Order: sequence, then structure tokens, then C-alpha cells
Amino acid sequence: MNEKMLEVEVKVRVNPEQIKEKLKELKAAFIKEVEQEDTYFKHPCWNFKDRDEALRVREEGNIFFLTFKGPKLDKKIKVRKELQLQVESEIFELLKEIGFSELKKVRKRRKLYQWKNLKVCLDKVEGLGDFLEIEGKSWEDKSIIRELVKKLNIKEESLSTISYLELLLLHSSS
Amino acid sequence: MNEKMLEVEVKVRVNPEQIKEKLKELKAAFIKEVEQEDTYFKHPCWNFKDRDEALRVREEGNIFFLTFKGPKLDKKIKVRKELQLQVESEIFELLKEIGFSELKKVRKRRKLYQWKNLKVCLDKVEGLGDFLEIEGKSWEDKSIIRELVKKLNIKEESLSTISYLELLLLHSSS
Repeated sequence: MNEKMLEVEVKVRVNPEQIKEKLKELKAAFIKEVEQEDTYFKHPCWNFKDRDEALRVREEGNIFFLTFKGPKLDKKIKVRKELQLQVESEIFELLKEIGFSELKKVRKRRKLYQWKNLKVCLDKVEGLGDFLEIEGKSWEDKSIIRELVKKLNIKEESLSTISYLELLLLHSSS
Repeated sequence: MNEKMLEVEVKVRVNPEQIKEKLKELKAAFIKEVEQEDTYFKHPCWNFKDRDEALRVREEGNIFFLTFKGPKLDKKIKVRKELQLQVESEIFELLKEIGFSELKKVRKRRKLYQWKNLKVCLDKVEGLGDFLEIEGKSWEDKSIIRELVKKLNIKEESLSTISYLELLLLHSSS
């Protein structure tokens, strides 16, 4: 089961070697390194961007996940509804049949760590570079995220809530 | 994997005891007996009925399948594109988030048999009664379906291609 109702997240551009050292010092547990290919979709009759929503299929080692992201509920540390479930590869053709067309692909290599109850992701994103994402699952996780950000010597003002998709779309329109 | 690109199917109202006897004589293999709850959805911006399409979530013993059915390609023996994949229970909430609303539920108890490469389903449908469905996966299966129909002493003219959903909607509108 991949149920997760809330996504609480910050992102920051980093030097990956420095962060790896810091995560080691903090005894964050290394979980896995994976390739992820995320495909984002356009809705057949409304604009996901205007609604601050997203529909995505993630492929990770031949496993597929369908994910809906709701509008951001908080801007400083991003909080939004997230619904995710495991599906199969036929999801691409099915979404096409019901009117969803491909908007953009985001490809990354992710090193996943765990610190307390947080997912800590060191991402190398194709076309964008190296980022750290820290993710929790509840409003209460915000303070733990702030604690980790501080321990990693990251300034709060350098944190971003912009998504890789938004960054890539900005990139390709310029 | 639950990939199946074509659905080739006939349906007929039957006396289940007679059919059970006949299937025994024909040495059809009994596979399983299951409860199925099918939920059909309305599209957010077009009419599936006008397009002769359907989107369905099937729940069978706590396993969930998402299925798209394309327009009928042949009317006498129903042939249509069918795309099916396994999903998880969160699919209901996700479909709601992207604009799909529930149209109707179809509940049935299905006794599943296999004869040659055909699925033979003896269905007790809530609100409709007892039916036999014979299903293949390719255009070539049509002749095997005709062979089985003949062996079961079913008259070709009594065969129907109308779906349980259509029958129930007719039912509830009268």
C-alpha cells in the first residue's frame, strides 16, 4: 500500500558531496539509490497549472505509481494533498484513452535516506542539477524538517517550494 | 499483469442449473467463485455513453482493477478494445480528484470456468438475475465462442451484447 495523504516538503539546490558528509554525521540511514522517470499529464478539460494540481505517473525500476497532487496549502514549507497508488504500465495508454496527454517528463537519480520520520532525497535531476528534498507526511513534521534544515546548515531563505516540473517548464520556455 | 487488449464477448440470460450441468458435460474447468463490485464513472468533460466507452473500477476480494472499454467494433459478437490494470483502493479518491464522478455500481456473484481458451462466466447480477457470459481475447475467438454457444444449445438470436451497466440503467430509468 502506498497511501499517503499529505506531502510536506522543502527543496534546496545543494553541493551533493557536502550534504552526503553531513547526512553521515547525522546518522541518516541510507535506504536506496534509484532512477525515477516521472511523466506529468495535461487534463482533458481543465488546467492543472491554474488549479495548482498535478497528475503524474512515476516509473521506478519497472514499478509504476499514479499520483495526484492537490493545491499547496502552505507556501513556506510546501504542504499539499498527495494521493498515490501502485498501478501497471498500461496506465499510460489508459490515461491517453480518457483524454490525458503528456505534458513533460522529469528524470532523476535519487539517493534516498531516512532521518527520524523524514524522507531525505539527494536528487540529480536531468537538465537541472543537484537538489536536496526533505519530505514528511503531516503538519507536525514541519518542525522536524526545520530542525534538519538547521543541522544541515541550510539557510531557511534558500528553501524553495517550486517543483522540478515547474523548474523544467521555466527552463524550456526561456 | 492484467493486460488484455481486446474483449470478445456474448451474453445470454440463462437457467444457471442447466448451464452448470452442460459445462460439466463439456468438461469446462471450474476456476473460482467470486464477488465482484464494479463502479462505473462519468467523464468530467465528455459523455462516455455517446462515445460507447466506459471507465470502471472492479473490486474483487480486496483487489482493485481499473478498466477502460473502447467503442464496440462489431455488434453481433461484441468486440471492443479493453485495457485493464491492477490498481489500489485509493483509485476511487484519485478519480474523484481529477473530475470523474460515480455513475452506477454493478454487483454480481461470478462462477468462472474455462473452456478451451475462453472464459465462461455464470453470473448472478444484483437486480438483474442469471446470465452466462463467454469471453475471448482475439477476433479468432469468435468461431470458438460460436462453437461453445452451439454445444450449450443456446440459440444465436438469443445472444445479447448489451452490458450489465446498460441493463441496470434501463431498469432504473423505467
